[in-house]
Amino acid sequence: MPRVLSTTLPERVGATVTIAGWVHRRRQLKSVTFLIVRDAAGLAQVVVADADLRARLAELTEESVVEVTGEVVGNPAAPAGVELVAPTVRPLGVPAVPPPFDVYRPELTASLPTQLDHAAVALRHPTRSAALRISAALVAGFRSTLEGHGFVEVHTPKIVASATESGANVFAIDYFGRPGYLAQSPQFYKQMLVGVLERVYEVGPVFRAEPHDTTRHLAQYTSLDVEFGFVADHRDVMRMLREVLAGMLDGLPDRAAGALATLGVTVPKVPAEIPAVHFAEALAIAGAPADEPDLAPAHERALGEWAQAEHGSDFLFVTGYPMAKRPFYTHPATTDAPGGGPREAYSNGFDLLFRGVELVTGGQRLHRHADYLAALAARREDPTPYASYLDTFRHGMPPHGGFAIGLERMVARLVGAGNVREVAAFPRDLHRLTP
Amino acid sequence: MPRVLSTTLPERVGATVTIAGWVHRRRQLKSVTFLIVRDAAGLAQVVVADADLRARLAELTEESVVEVTGEVVGNPAAPAGVELVAPTVRPLGVPAVPPPFDVYRPELTASLPTQLDHAAVALRHPTRSAALRISAALVAGFRSTLEGHGFVEVHTPKIVASATESGANVFAIDYFGRPGYLAQSPQFYKQMLVGVLERVYEVGPVFRAEPHDTTRHLAQYTSLDVEFGFVADHRDVMRMLREVLAGMLDGLPDRAAGALATLGVTVPKVPAEIPAVHFAEALAIAGAPADEPDLAPAHERALGEWAQAEHGSDFLFVTGYPMAKRPFYTHPATTDAPGGGPREAYSNGFDLLFRGVELVTGGQRLHRHADYLAALAARREDPTPYASYLDTFRHGMPPHGGFAIGLERMVARLVGAGNVREVAAFPRDLHRLTP
Repeated sequence: MPRVLSTTLPERVGATVTIAGWVHRRRQLKSVTFLIVRDAAGLAQVVVADADLRARLAELTEESVVEVTGEVVGNPAAPAGVELVAPTVRPLGVPAVPPPFDVYRPELTASLPTQLDHAAVALRHPTRSAALRISAALVAGFRSTLEGHGFVEVHTPKIVASATESGANVFAIDYFGRPGYLAQSPQFYKQMLVGVLERVYEVGPVFRAEPHDTTRHLAQYTSLDVEFGFVADHRDVMRMLREVLAGMLDGLPDRAAGALATLGVTVPKVPAEIPAVHFAEALAIAGAPADEPDLAPAHERALGEWAQAEHGSDFLFVTGYPMAKRPFYTHPATTDAPGGGPREAYSNGFDLLFRGVELVTGGQRLHRHADYLAALAARREDPTPYASYLDTFRHGMPPHGGFAIGLERMVARLVGAGNVREVAAFPRDLHRLTP
Repeated sequence: MPRVLSTTLPERVGATVTIAGWVHRRRQLKSVTFLIVRDAAGLAQVVVADADLRARLAELTEESVVEVTGEVVGNPAAPAGVELVAPTVRPLGVPAVPPPFDVYRPELTASLPTQLDHAAVALRHPTRSAALRISAALVAGFRSTLEGHGFVEVHTPKIVASATESGANVFAIDYFGRPGYLAQSPQFYKQMLVGVLERVYEVGPVFRAEPHDTTRHLAQYTSLDVEFGFVADHRDVMRMLREVLAGMLDGLPDRAAGALATLGVTVPKVPAEIPAVHFAEALAIAGAPADEPDLAPAHERALGEWAQAEHGSDFLFVTGYPMAKRPFYTHPATTDAPGGGPREAYSNGFDLLFRGVELVTGGQRLHRHADYLAALAARREDPTPYASYLDTFRHGMPPHGGFAIGLERMVARLVGAGNVREVAAFPRDLHRLTP
C-alpha cells in the first residue's frame, strides 16, 4: 500500500492507509498506547489497544522509524481531528537510541551549543525544521521574482587568488601548492557577468573568517546576490530590491504555511515604497553624532523603531553611506546630501534595515575603468591583485548596481530567533567546525 | 524613453524605440555605417546615414556600451527582419578598448586558455553566454521538478573538519588556526537532513583537488544533489532521477529557446524507462574483462553507443557497481547479480551515462548504525572522524538514497563542448585560479 503523508489523513476518514515516519512521542497508558508519528508533513496520532502490539511497542523508542497501517477515524480530541486505529506497526530498522534531549517537547530545552553539537537530531524538532522550510521558501521567492525580471542564475568561483574586498577576514587555502582564499562574496564575478548577461543572481555560500563571536555573524552563510546593468543610479537598485523582498515575503504563506504556523510568524508587508532616509538624517534620528562614519547596532535598532513609528514599516532604507566606509567599487553620490554635506563624501550605496537590523547592502558601482584606478589610488591600494576584474571595465561596462541579502539573518529576524545559529542547518563559526 | 530589448523589435515596426547594449559589430561602409547592438536578448541592426553621427561613430569601438533611439523599420535583409533607422546614439561611458579577440565573429578563434584568461569578455560571445543560459535553465528544471515532489532546498557547510569520502583530493584550509577542508560533496549533510525533512536537494559548489588535467574535471564544480528517505531500494532512486532529468530537459525549449538555437542543440528525449544494465553485463557489452572493478572512459563510450543502437537512448543506467569501488555508505546489493556473481560483491549503487559519459552517481545508502560500523571496519577505516555523521544513524533513519549530477559536465555533453571549461563561467583547475 503506498504511503500517504500525515496531513492528508483528514480527507481519508474511513480508509485504511499506510503512513511512515519517526516515533515522535510514545505514551504508554494503562490500557492503550498512543504513538505520535512525525513525517515530512506533520504529526499523526496512532492508537494501539492490542496487547501483543503494545508489548512490542515497549521496545520501540522515540525517534525509531516505523511504517503504520491502520484505519483513519475521526476523533475531535486528536490532532487535526483524526487518528489511526487498529494499526499494524512495522519498524524500518532497529529501535533508536534516545537522543540527548527530547525532540517531542514543545520547545527544545537543551542549550544552543548542545543542540548544535547534535544538529542532526535537534533539527528534527518542528520549530527547527520549520526555520529550514521558511529559508527554502524565501529563496524560492527570491528566484522566481528575479526570473520574472529576466535575471539569469550564475555560479561563480569560491576559491580566489586574492582577498576580494579587504585583506582581513579571509580563509587561506592551499591551492595546489600556492595560496588561495575563500571568496568573501561573488561581488567581482557578478559584476563581470553583468557584462555578459546584464542581469544575474547567485545563491551561494560566502566565507568570512569572522574573528568575533556574535549572534548575527557566521563563518559561512548563504548570500543572495543580485547585480544588473543599465541602471540610472542606486534608486533603480532599491526599486528592484523592493520587488524581490515583496516576492520573497508575499509568497511565504503559499510556500511554507505549515512552518509559519509552527513558529507563529506574522509575515511583514513590504510597503509599495519602502521609506528611505539619507545617512546624515539617519544619524540624527538615531541620536548619533553627526560625524559618525557608520551605524552601530544600537543606531540600527533606533532606526527600526523610528520606521515602525513613523511609517508603520518593518523596512527602512538608509541611503548615501559615507564613501569612507564602502568598498572601492562603490559609486560616489550623484545627488546632494541633505543639510549640504560635501557630496563627494557620500555614496550611491545603501543598506536596508529589517526590524532594526542590517539585512541588505547594495548600491550603484563604478563602471568606468579610469574611475576604478582613481578609487584604488585614492585608497593607496595596489591594483595588481584586481587585474582581471579591472580589465572588464576597459572593455565596455554599463552603469550597474546590485545588492546582497544575508539569508540566515533574514530568516532569524523573521522568525524572531535571537541567534542566526538557530536557523542555519549546520552553522560554522569561530569555535565550530562540526558537525 | 524606457529601453526595450532587441528581440521585441519585430513587434514594434513603425515605432520609435530606445535600445541599449554593446556595440557587437561596427561596419563603416562608403555611405552608411551599420551598428549591431548586442543586449541580453540578442542582436539588433542600426543603420546610420547621417554624416556627423557617422564621424562620431568612428571613435566608438566594438564592445562600447551605447543607448540608441531610432525608428523600427522592416528590412527583410536585416537580422530578424527589422532594423533601427535615423538613430541618435548615446555612449554610456568611454569607448571600449578592443578585446584581445573578436567577440563578433561566428566562433571565438582564440585558444581556450586565452579565452579563459579573458573570461569576462570571452563569455560575451553568444555561444559562450548561451551555455550559461542553458546551465541556468537546467537548474531551474531540476528545482521545479523536485519541488513538485515535495523536496526542500538546503544549504550545507562547505568547510568540514575531515575529508568526507577519502583522504585524497581535498583542499586544506586554515580554519581559525586549526585544519579544515573544503567539502568534496554534501553527502553526509544531505543524508543527515533526510532525518529532518525526508526529501532534500542542494545546488552548490563542491571542491576536488583534482591532480589531473582532463577535459571533464574541475577543481570546483556545481553539484546538483538529491537525497530522500523511505525508498524500497535504489530503483526508487533511479525512478526519481528519471523524473528529474526529464523535468530538466523537457523544460529547456521553454526556458532557453534562444540559447538552444544559438548552439544548435537538439534536446534529447528521456525515455519513460531509461534502459539499465547490471555492471557485469556492462563489462561484457563494453568488451572489458569480467574482473574489471570499474568502467574506463572507453568502456563508457562503448556503452553509450550500445544504448543508442539497442534502445535509441542517450541515457543508460549501469546498476550494481562493485562495492569495492563505492564509498563506505553504499548499500550492498539486495538482489542477485546476473550470471550468478557473488551478491555481496555488488552494490545498490548506480551510474547514469549520458551519451557515453558518466553524468550521475547514485544509489541506496546504508541506514543502520551497526552497518556503518561494520562497513568502516571492513575497510579498516577509523570511525572517529565520522562521529557526528554516524551518530545520526543511532537515532532513527529510514532507508534512503540519492544521487548527484555534475552540472558543467551535463551542459558540456548537451551542447557538444569538448571541455567542461567551455561551459563554466570561471573554471578552476590545477593551473587556473584566475580570473
